[in-house]
Amino acid sequence: MSTAEKVKVIFQPSGRRGEVERGINIIEASRQIGVDIEALCGEKKVCGKCKVRIEQGSFEKFGIISSPDNLSPWQKEEAKFITDAEREQGYRLGCMAKLDGDALVFVPEESRAGKQVVSKAARDIPIKWDPTVRLYTVSLTKPTFEDPLGDFERLCAALEEKHGLKDLDVDIFTLRELPGALRQGEWTATAAVWNEKEIIKFWPGEVTDYYGLGIDMGTTTVAAYFCNMRTMEVIDTVSMMNPQCKYGEDVMARITYHMQNPGGLERMSGDMIEGLNTLVQKACEATWPPKKKKRDENGKSMRDDDGVIILEEAPEKDKRYLQLNPSDVMDIAIGGNTAMHHILLQLDPQYVGLAPFPPVIHRSLDIKARDLGIKINRGSYIYVLPNEAGFVGADNVCVLIAEEPYKSDDLQLIIDIGTNGELVLGNKDKLISSSCATGPALEGAQLSYGMRAAPGAIERIKIDPDTHEVDYKVIGRDAWRSFSKPEEMQTKGICGSGILDVLAELYTAGVIVKSGRFAKEQKSDRYRVNPDTKQKEFVIAWAKETSIGKDVVISLKDIRQIQLGKGALYTGCKLMMRRMGMEKVDRIKIAGAFGTHVDRTKALIMGLFPDCDLEKVSSVGNAAGDGARAALLDKQKRKDANWVARNVEYIELTVEEDFEKQFMQSMQIPHMVDEFPHLEGVVPEEVLRQK
Amino acid sequence: MSTAEKVKVIFQPSGRRGEVERGINIIEASRQIGVDIEALCGEKKVCGKCKVRIEQGSFEKFGIISSPDNLSPWQKEEAKFITDAEREQGYRLGCMAKLDGDALVFVPEESRAGKQVVSKAARDIPIKWDPTVRLYTVSLTKPTFEDPLGDFERLCAALEEKHGLKDLDVDIFTLRELPGALRQGEWTATAAVWNEKEIIKFWPGEVTDYYGLGIDMGTTTVAAYFCNMRTMEVIDTVSMMNPQCKYGEDVMARITYHMQNPGGLERMSGDMIEGLNTLVQKACEATWPPKKKKRDENGKSMRDDDGVIILEEAPEKDKRYLQLNPSDVMDIAIGGNTAMHHILLQLDPQYVGLAPFPPVIHRSLDIKARDLGIKINRGSYIYVLPNEAGFVGADNVCVLIAEEPYKSDDLQLIIDIGTNGELVLGNKDKLISSSCATGPALEGAQLSYGMRAAPGAIERIKIDPDTHEVDYKVIGRDAWRSFSKPEEMQTKGICGSGILDVLAELYTAGVIVKSGRFAKEQKSDRYRVNPDTKQKEFVIAWAKETSIGKDVVISLKDIRQIQLGKGALYTGCKLMMRRMGMEKVDRIKIAGAFGTHVDRTKALIMGLFPDCDLEKVSSVGNAAGDGARAALLDKQKRKDANWVARNVEYIELTVEEDFEKQFMQSMQIPHMVDEFPHLEGVVPEEVLRQK
Repeated sequence: MSTAEKVKVIFQPSGRRGEVERGINIIEASRQIGVDIEALCGEKKVCGKCKVRIEQGSFEKFGIISSPDNLSPWQKEEAKFITDAEREQGYRLGCMAKLDGDALVFVPEESRAGKQVVSKAARDIPIKWDPTVRLYTVSLTKPTFEDPLGDFERLCAALEEKHGLKDLDVDIFTLRELPGALRQGEWTATAAVWNEKEIIKFWPGEVTDYYGLGIDMGTTTVAAYFCNMRTMEVIDTVSMMNPQCKYGEDVMARITYHMQNPGGLERMSGDMIEGLNTLVQKACEATWPPKKKKRDENGKSMRDDDGVIILEEAPEKDKRYLQLNPSDVMDIAIGGNTAMHHILLQLDPQYVGLAPFPPVIHRSLDIKARDLGIKINRGSYIYVLPNEAGFVGADNVCVLIAEEPYKSDDLQLIIDIGTNGELVLGNKDKLISSSCATGPALEGAQLSYGMRAAPGAIERIKIDPDTHEVDYKVIGRDAWRSFSKPEEMQTKGICGSGILDVLAELYTAGVIVKSGRFAKEQKSDRYRVNPDTKQKEFVIAWAKETSIGKDVVISLKDIRQIQLGKGALYTGCKLMMRRMGMEKVDRIKIAGAFGTHVDRTKALIMGLFPDCDLEKVSSVGNAAGDGARAALLDKQKRKDANWVARNVEYIELTVEEDFEKQFMQSMQIPHMVDEFPHLEGVVPEEVLRQK
Repeated sequence: MSTAEKVKVIFQPSGRRGEVERGINIIEASRQIGVDIEALCGEKKVCGKCKVRIEQGSFEKFGIISSPDNLSPWQKEEAKFITDAEREQGYRLGCMAKLDGDALVFVPEESRAGKQVVSKAARDIPIKWDPTVRLYTVSLTKPTFEDPLGDFERLCAALEEKHGLKDLDVDIFTLRELPGALRQGEWTATAAVWNEKEIIKFWPGEVTDYYGLGIDMGTTTVAAYFCNMRTMEVIDTVSMMNPQCKYGEDVMARITYHMQNPGGLERMSGDMIEGLNTLVQKACEATWPPKKKKRDENGKSMRDDDGVIILEEAPEKDKRYLQLNPSDVMDIAIGGNTAMHHILLQLDPQYVGLAPFPPVIHRSLDIKARDLGIKINRGSYIYVLPNEAGFVGADNVCVLIAEEPYKSDDLQLIIDIGTNGELVLGNKDKLISSSCATGPALEGAQLSYGMRAAPGAIERIKIDPDTHEVDYKVIGRDAWRSFSKPEEMQTKGICGSGILDVLAELYTAGVIVKSGRFAKEQKSDRYRVNPDTKQKEFVIAWAKETSIGKDVVISLKDIRQIQLGKGALYTGCKLMMRRMGMEKVDRIKIAGAFGTHVDRTKALIMGLFPDCDLEKVSSVGNAAGDGARAALLDKQKRKDANWVARNVEYIELTVEEDFEKQFMQSMQIPHMVDEFPHLEGVVPEEVLRQK
């Protein structure tokens, strides 16, 4: 098999096609051609999400003959996810089937990596105005024979005299703008100064407003706060899926992708940079005035020679329409977990994934935007927040500088639940942090019908204790199931925030018992043993209510996954409290999208985190994003970040002596009345005292 | 005339050809095709050096029909340089004739921009070893669960403990090398640290030797000293023509090129960067081991499948053969005059050419090599020396930090003669500097037969006072004219160092008088009135001795040009001495190639600079290059450079009250016995007392 040989491949229903190297697998082909197929496990062959169908036949329109025989032989691992009937139809796993000839590949809806509904709004946290980048306007005298001082020294003298700025450096690209700016502004100019140290931009005349972004770079979602750096106003919040999702859902999958693919790190980094550039562009374009159709004197819309309607700027140029461009962005502060941090910066992330998990660097970095390929003002820096440890990254530092537990008397427990759970415990006297492998289950991934928070995802559920009948609600539809026709639901799966609801309801309705097993007594035909998988399962939505033509179920295996996740989190909290020698915490803060959506009562019922006055359990929203925004606007926060990254003590929990025992106990649904006195009066007595 | 239309053009004798846009002139076409035509005046249409001949006829081989009619119409300014007979033959000026159709262009030898013989060897000046970039080797302990500190912080802790380095930054590209280097070197690594501030390179294990270049970027020649930065040894001296020469010979011509051509600045800068990259590559390749033919057991040289002889490395790998690559270069210090400085950095140079001549910046700059496109170690900086003023640039600063007049008790006059003369006068108490428009004449340019110091250029001359017969010597031939057959001389013109000889000899032999006019009594037929130009002239070399088929003469106009140059220099010296209130100087130092070649006695006879004990007049060679090398190896020199750039007082001489009067007087050949008592006993009595 020559590696130089090419085969043709077409993806349906998108219709995208191209030529790829013979011998690559379908996932890789989809990446090259630009089709998104779910690859939750990062091609570790364990999630089965990348199921696709190879069509049989001659497709003259595309000049190919497609056949399942054009692929590498069937692997027995594929049988775990593909039934014999499906195999007959041509189903394969995209990560296993390699192209040995032309193929038309149909990507079923559940295998498509959909566009997630992202809601990460900026919270109103108090931020002091003391940005790293500031503007200064000065007026100069013109050079003469008596005073032929050079432009830069002339400007610096004025900046020192008027603003006390000394020994300023200047970026070479910025310096090129100086002679023109001075003369165009008739010897009045504005300089953007970074860190009281380096001039990164010149404008002719006086300029007052300038712009920046605080960016929270999550494993799944990237959210940016676009700010006016003078007024601190959040002009817009923009977000996108992390474009690296196609290389694997979690950080370990991406680290694995890097280790197994030469150039993989550069590719993932490049995708992120490209994404960030698009994000900045999008933020700027939102400030542009709306266009309207250009009309002739008769009011008819005008067309150009090609028949295209001509648009022109709307007349009212109100304050909202700033017409900003990426080159108007003077500063960016960005934080992400250690793996995202390393991948962005092309720092080898493999050791972050290997015990004892040392990161390449902890401290914050100031990197010229152009060195990363980020297209903002050419002289500007990107401020990259510092990492605490291999598994507690800059995203957690962002949460800390937003929430400032290091200034608090109260003992706070801050939980940031993503694919990895990050925990911080303490107050102004001491802070410890840890991470726990909650796994993707709490976010809905790696479950039979888990999915991201996208339209069609079940997010709320109620189960009747008497009949075990189910009512639920999906994202993108206000009406619950009981108020809809089945076919209106278009259900697709269960999202992260729905998962806890499901489990808590299954338990309080008596479908499952404390150990997580299904109860002996079942009240509906929703409970069954799946004839194909032989697994016990409970039907949440019948096939007729879904857009995927299949029952959406939760299986015993799914329940175990969730228990593993919640057990890991609870063990983490407990062990950290033991380390700090404390019985209870004063306050629990839950960061991230999970926190925004989670039902506190149900979380306590499931024993996700330790008992606490429900009033003192709060969601702090996208605290990571808030922290990045704070670092953009207040340089003290940058100092705090470096301090906190080095002064929060990281605890590796898995090496604690009785970790295994604690973990086994934590997987159980807890005995509420003993462990969660705060639930008294909140949940029904019989649930509270259930054995 | 559509601008998109193309015409074919072929240059002879080089045979280079290509398609260019219809309507551009021949000089521009030659640039695009890569043929060097002399354009001394930068297309200001005043030098006449770019004379070319358009051939008439059908050139089937090239598929073109060439004709002088294919060019834009004859301009009357061309008649200044092209005789009617030459016009008949198809001669045109390359800067005026535009291509309106295909053309075969013959470039006569005297119009070709030849390769100059450059000799800028490194002098032995005392330099202290204290480079800005230093290497440090440390051994670390491996990370463990108890000590999971990140790679960078682990390294920094060791660098602080062992070498006292604190708060180090790191270049992002360098940081990417860290995890690999640490593990490859089994936790021993070497870091290159810039300015005790930033790590710019990592190597696994221990590394001791590292490399750098000190570069003197002249208007005409660029010379680089390639140094081992540990031992301070100059491994090699490499040089090249300034690739910007094709845009004009002097700085004003290049500034004009920038102002008249959009993108011209970027083009000139790009050419310099490309040249510097080639220079670095050349320096490195000189360290590679020689290749030898690979031989089989029978001693026969071996060939590959294509029949090409296979080369292999010579066996003796002695210390000389380092096999360095540009990425081994850790530092570069570069200096040039203010215009060269600005063009290199793409800083608008137009104000440097306009009164009161303010530069864009004085102070030194540390610029990431990659930001300039200079291909050395990716994390390294280029140190760009500071400018004193618009007409006294970093090249002069280099001379000063090499010669250190600011540490001297003696009153020194330092003269750096190029196209622009740069003067520094003073001692440790006070230093003043100035520049004077010596013009290109002292270097041999803009004279009828002036040329660069290239083979065929007259460099020494003697004129017999009794017969006015001439003997001379050319570069590239040891034998003088009187010892050669005429056709062996292959004379082409007169170079800079020859010019002063010519004038001094013309004067002492009585061919010209003090005012510069030809003497009434002439003794040979070498003196004549040119029938074409009607100019008085004196033949230095007859046509039969030349390779250009024409008499090489010096005309009255040429003599005037030289007088203007030497007058400007002498006026500068005198006015500066007056400013400092001094009658005489203790020491005169002449920097640059001019200084190396000039005959001190003849310079005094001509009155180039003030009287001084001949023993105290010395050439300091390429002091600018030595200064750049000093700045590479001793960071104190960089501090000195910034200090001296701001503390040498720049005097604009042309605004002195009696400048004109002084200048008129200085143009005369001086009255030696009065003004130059030190010439007594050195020149014949009758010359010394000549009126």
